[in-house]
Amino acid sequence: MTDTPLYHRVCIIGLGLIGSSLLRCLMADRSLAAEVVACDRSDAVCARVAELGIADRVESDATLAVAGADLVILCTPVGAYADVAALIGPHLAPGSTLSDVGSVKQAVVRDVSPHVPDGVHFVPGHPLAGTEHSGPDAGFKELFRGRWLILTPPPGTDAEAVDRLGRLWAACGSQIEVMDASHHDQVLAITSHLPHLIAYTIVGTATDLEETTKSEVIRFSATGFRDFTRIAASDPVMWRDIFLNNREAVLEMIQRFTEDLTALQRAIRWGEGDKLFDLFTRTRAIRRSIIDAKQA
Amino acid sequence: MTDTPLYHRVCIIGLGLIGSSLLRCLMADRSLAAEVVACDRSDAVCARVAELGIADRVESDATLAVAGADLVILCTPVGAYADVAALIGPHLAPGSTLSDVGSVKQAVVRDVSPHVPDGVHFVPGHPLAGTEHSGPDAGFKELFRGRWLILTPPPGTDAEAVDRLGRLWAACGSQIEVMDASHHDQVLAITSHLPHLIAYTIVGTATDLEETTKSEVIRFSATGFRDFTRIAASDPVMWRDIFLNNREAVLEMIQRFTEDLTALQRAIRWGEGDKLFDLFTRTRAIRRSIIDAKQA
Repeated sequence: MTDTPLYHRVCIIGLGLIGSSLLRCLMADRSLAAEVVACDRSDAVCARVAELGIADRVESDATLAVAGADLVILCTPVGAYADVAALIGPHLAPGSTLSDVGSVKQAVVRDVSPHVPDGVHFVPGHPLAGTEHSGPDAGFKELFRGRWLILTPPPGTDAEAVDRLGRLWAACGSQIEVMDASHHDQVLAITSHLPHLIAYTIVGTATDLEETTKSEVIRFSATGFRDFTRIAASDPVMWRDIFLNNREAVLEMIQRFTEDLTALQRAIRWGEGDKLFDLFTRTRAIRRSIIDAKQA
Repeated sequence: MTDTPLYHRVCIIGLGLIGSSLLRCLMADRSLAAEVVACDRSDAVCARVAELGIADRVESDATLAVAGADLVILCTPVGAYADVAALIGPHLAPGSTLSDVGSVKQAVVRDVSPHVPDGVHFVPGHPLAGTEHSGPDAGFKELFRGRWLILTPPPGTDAEAVDRLGRLWAACGSQIEVMDASHHDQVLAITSHLPHLIAYTIVGTATDLEETTKSEVIRFSATGFRDFTRIAASDPVMWRDIFLNNREAVLEMIQRFTEDLTALQRAIRWGEGDKLFDLFTRTRAIRRSIIDAKQA
């Protein structure tokens, strides 16, 4: 361990679940950042973060917040990135790194890159971590522990900048993986985006059932449905932005899913028990693989 | 508390997760049954239950097992009920109660009723409890604690028999609800059967993606997908039988779900963020209701 911290000044923009968890990590390990600056466009959120004492300095003006920072991480909903990037771009310090935590990556490159000045390293990132809770009070410093952190640096990105950012996340407990943005969006479409869309759909379908049945859906939610409602309680703005910004990959996965569901529907209608049994046996094996991979 | 147990002899047929949990409840509270008889067609399962010491007597012959019992509870997969009922029907004691724990109820009435002799009370039941694990080792006596137990006695069923069975389940920790079989099947189709079918489908869809992506699905399963794999690891025989035996209600729910998913798919394709946001906000409120109902 050297006396020089990994970064001189880190600025976190957007102080929700992820942003505030990151602040807590940085404040807990002073070898990562000599100064931690927190920024949110909401005065109420800024006041709450100041009250929680999880930043050295809180700024509601993003242009002031990023000044002099050698690492800026966008933690707002993805839909706000273009505006934030346009605002802070001219104020980013030469040689600094700009990163983010968005759940989609191609759209982030599309929206942010045009605003990144020459000499600033743009290294998009995505921590595969979260809960169904939102806001600065929902964050906790163990959130990233044992979870993946995917970095998707565009071709030609400075290797030292990528490595240094990886070391910051590793210190937060993450396992680092580097891949290209398009592959990231495909993998996340099936592992995360489609499951969330399905959960939102089924909870909506249940809600729309007539009043009597609805209250019974809640009363008798313990066998299956309940697990979906937890996923479907995730932040609405964040998820709207994810679906709008990973459109092609999500539509492709919906299509595959719908074909498979239609095949099962047909097997049920025609009483083809063997087809059902075969699928249910295969899916059980997948669960075993996930437990073996220590992701369960 | 009286000296006379609730039942003289209780016979549990089918010693998987539910059956073996029930055995453990009965053995832990001797005011429920003076004698606890366990029965399974598998000799290996019978031997394991004897080894576990969770029954007073273990029988692999169901006709011997039910002899003299004043309560018999079927805990096999629903698809085996007709055969088991035909086998044990002639051996059921006059005045005894026959019940079950199946996840569908109209089909159970259809399959079992013809084999129930006059003078035997048929009181179908369904504990809304379970895990993704199977077999006699997976059971535990706390499984039913705080969970619903739904009874669906056909019209004209002896009220005292229903009440007594409810008291047994209440002693296992369940909350008792009585409704008709058709309503049960509707409510469970949306709260349990559709969620399981969806989970099986999405895990299958992911498995079918090409080899590279597949291993990444497992590595990066932490955000959403993982929750589905747990549900999709449930017992294949049990779930095949559920879908084949609640066909009409499940097909109706798939239809509603598919319509809703198609509407969301269209909203994503056309970039209609407001529609997504509105649904995601409604589903979040449903989660809150479930937490308030203490089912989360």
